[in-house]
Parts: sequence; C-alpha cells; structure tokens
Amino acid sequence: MSNFGFPHLRVVNPYEIGFREARSAVGASSVLAGAEVFGSVAGAVADCSLVVGTTAVGHRELQHPLKRLEVGAALIRKRLTSGRVALLFGSEKVGLSNHDLSHCQWLLRIPTREEHGTMNLGQAVAVCLYELVRGAKAAVKADKGNSAAAGRVERVTALLLELLQKSGYVGPRTATITEDKVRRLVRRLDLQTADAELLLGMLRQIGWKLAESQRK
Amino acid sequence: MSNFGFPHLRVVNPYEIGFREARSAVGASSVLAGAEVFGSVAGAVADCSLVVGTTAVGHRELQHPLKRLEVGAALIRKRLTSGRVALLFGSEKVGLSNHDLSHCQWLLRIPTREEHGTMNLGQAVAVCLYELVRGAKAAVKADKGNSAAAGRVERVTALLLELLQKSGYVGPRTATITEDKVRRLVRRLDLQTADAELLLGMLRQIGWKLAESQRK
Repeated sequence: MSNFGFPHLRVVNPYEIGFREARSAVGASSVLAGAEVFGSVAGAVADCSLVVGTTAVGHRELQHPLKRLEVGAALIRKRLTSGRVALLFGSEKVGLSNHDLSHCQWLLRIPTREEHGTMNLGQAVAVCLYELVRGAKAAVKADKGNSAAAGRVERVTALLLELLQKSGYVGPRTATITEDKVRRLVRRLDLQTADAELLLGMLRQIGWKLAESQRK
Repeated sequence: MSNFGFPHLRVVNPYEIGFREARSAVGASSVLAGAEVFGSVAGAVADCSLVVGTTAVGHRELQHPLKRLEVGAALIRKRLTSGRVALLFGSEKVGLSNHDLSHCQWLLRIPTREEHGTMNLGQAVAVCLYELVRGAKAAVKADKGNSAAAGRVERVTALLLELLQKSGYVGPRTATITEDKVRRLVRRLDLQTADAELLLGMLRQIGWKLAESQRK
C-alpha cells in the first residue's frame, strides 16, 4: 500500500497479535499507524460509493459480475475521481465469505493460472494496487454519475428486506441466504444517490401501506 | 511464480534453512522442487539471451538503462518468443550488488512512490510476473453481460407501478409524471435478465400480500 501510494487501510476484526506485530513493517509505519479498525464490513465501507471484492476464481459459485483486474482497475480509477472506493480482501486462510461478498458491487480477479488461482494475500494486494497506478498519468474521464454511498445503499437493502419479510417472501429457513441474495442484487443495481433516495421513498410508502392494511 | 505460470526458478547461493522451509509453499511445490541451485549469477544466466535486473531506483548510481516495468515487460515478452530470459532479483536485505547487476543488459523498475521505493521481494516478483502475463488473454475473456430484454424490464416497471398505486405513492394528479419517473428509474438500473426475474418475484410477493391484507 505504501509503495504504491494508498494510505487508507481499514481492517475488520483483525487478529490482534498479528496486527500489532505488522505495525513494524519497514517503511509502511504511517499506513499502519493510520489504520482504522471496524467491527463489520458494513461499517468499514459505509462511506464508499463503490465496493469491489477480490476472489480466487473457481473456489465457489460466484453470484457477482467478475471483472479481470485490468478491466476492473480502469473502472475503479474512474470512480475514484468522484468518490471513495473500497477494495476488499479476505483473510489469508479463508478469503471473503459470501456474506462479505454481498456488500460488493462486483468482483475483481487477478489473471492467475487456473491450476493455481489462490494467491498470497500481500502479493495479491501488491498486484492489484500496481495495476491501479499503472499508467496513472493517462487522462481519465470523470464519472459523471453521483454514486450512492454504501450506507445509503444498505438502507435500501434493509427496507426491501423488511418488506420481503412482511410479505412472506423470506422463509425462516432461508433468511440468511435471502438476505445475502437481496444485498447482492441491490449492489448490482449500482444506484445513483438520487435513485437510492427515490427507491427509499417508494419502499417506505409500500411498507407503510402494508403495515396499515395489516392493522385493520 | 506458480500463480502466473513461470516454472523455472534458479537460485544463487541460497540461505539453506530458509530455502528448505520455503519448499512447503502452498500450491507451488513443483516450482520449488524443480529449482536449480547455482554458485554464481554467471552460471545461473549462462543460457539466457537476455538478462534483466530489478532495482529500487535511487539507492545507487545506476550504470544501466532503466526501463519502467510496463515498457520492459513488453521487450521481455518479445524476447521470450526466441530464447530464454532471466529476471534477476536480489535478496530481501541487500538487493542486487553492482557485480550482480553487471550481468544485466538493462534494469527494470516497478513504478513505486519515490518516497517508498523498496519493495518486499515476494511482492516485487508477483508484480513483475503479473505484468508479463497481463493482457495475454485479455481479448478472450470479455465481460459477458446478459442484459434483460426491454419487455421484461417493462414488466418490472408495471409491477412496481401497480404497487406504488396501491400504496398511495402515486397521486391522481401526478400519475403520468410518476409513471415516467419510475420507468426511467428502472431503465437506469440496467438490469441483467436474472436480476429482473428476481425483482419480479419479489414485487409479485409484496403485491400479493398487500392485496391479501386489504381484503381482510
């Protein structure tokens, strides 16, 4: 991160011992000293307008659009001109869970060999950040859109889920699966701020009517 | 090396203990098992038609042409079609000596920040090899979107509008304006076919529940 000029590290539930030891990393002490610790992925990405996950392809059934690193990096660079982007990496051992991934709009894949897709975490981060700064001086057209921050997108998700629960769309057995499914769906919509507000208004109204009807 | 498909590792005077321990590297055992050990750089690069060194710029007076990674990688790829190329990395602590570098035609530089040029060895190798395979298959794997047909998108619009009408979101005076607003919103979502189906299912269920509640 320090090599390529990315100063903002956020960690979710770090393994305390490893995290403290890492603070001695040569030349990167300012990144680690400034690292913010969060208790959940949702909290860590709340102010980001684009959340991108990373994956070793093939180790699970993917529910997300998958972009090759060089393609995805160009999209991230564009988005960075107008807002914050979170690039999400999993732990060395287990990677990102499906629940973690449900916070992502899409996933990034490093073009490794199919026979050996899983990378060392530090190397995967280095390769991704290198691609982001690679040819950085090329002019980038700004994203005209005004993408909704993750916090607002999560409110859309929560309201939609509430409606689906009240409607019996979400069964007790499948609650968690459906929650992740809905979260992924809403991320894929890649909402603009104004559209997120519009949807929130609609969902609130439908929810209010549903509650009123059920009271009668 | 294994991730990006480079099977030929040659090591010069390795630190025996570290080298033996490294043989357990996950997924890369074949690279390590096949590693050749040499007593000198000269011996290790003897059959190579191009020898390229790597350096953190600025830590010594360079006597060699220096190429940015993306430029150098293109030259290496060309040369690989007709012969062997050695990419030389120094040890973690001291890098390559001037004597080591004297075996090189030119040097490669990873575009790190000037303030923090020295990279972790494994990360430097990963970034260089990634650049060598980058774009190799880029043309093949294009993003295959599967956008929903307009008819299906319109069904989403119609169902959402029906819900909004039943909920009192759409007032009689603003009906046409709202209808257009909702239609534009749904178009902006740029739905994939599967997502349109998912949304249709959700909207139907909410609509059914709303109708049922109102009958009671």
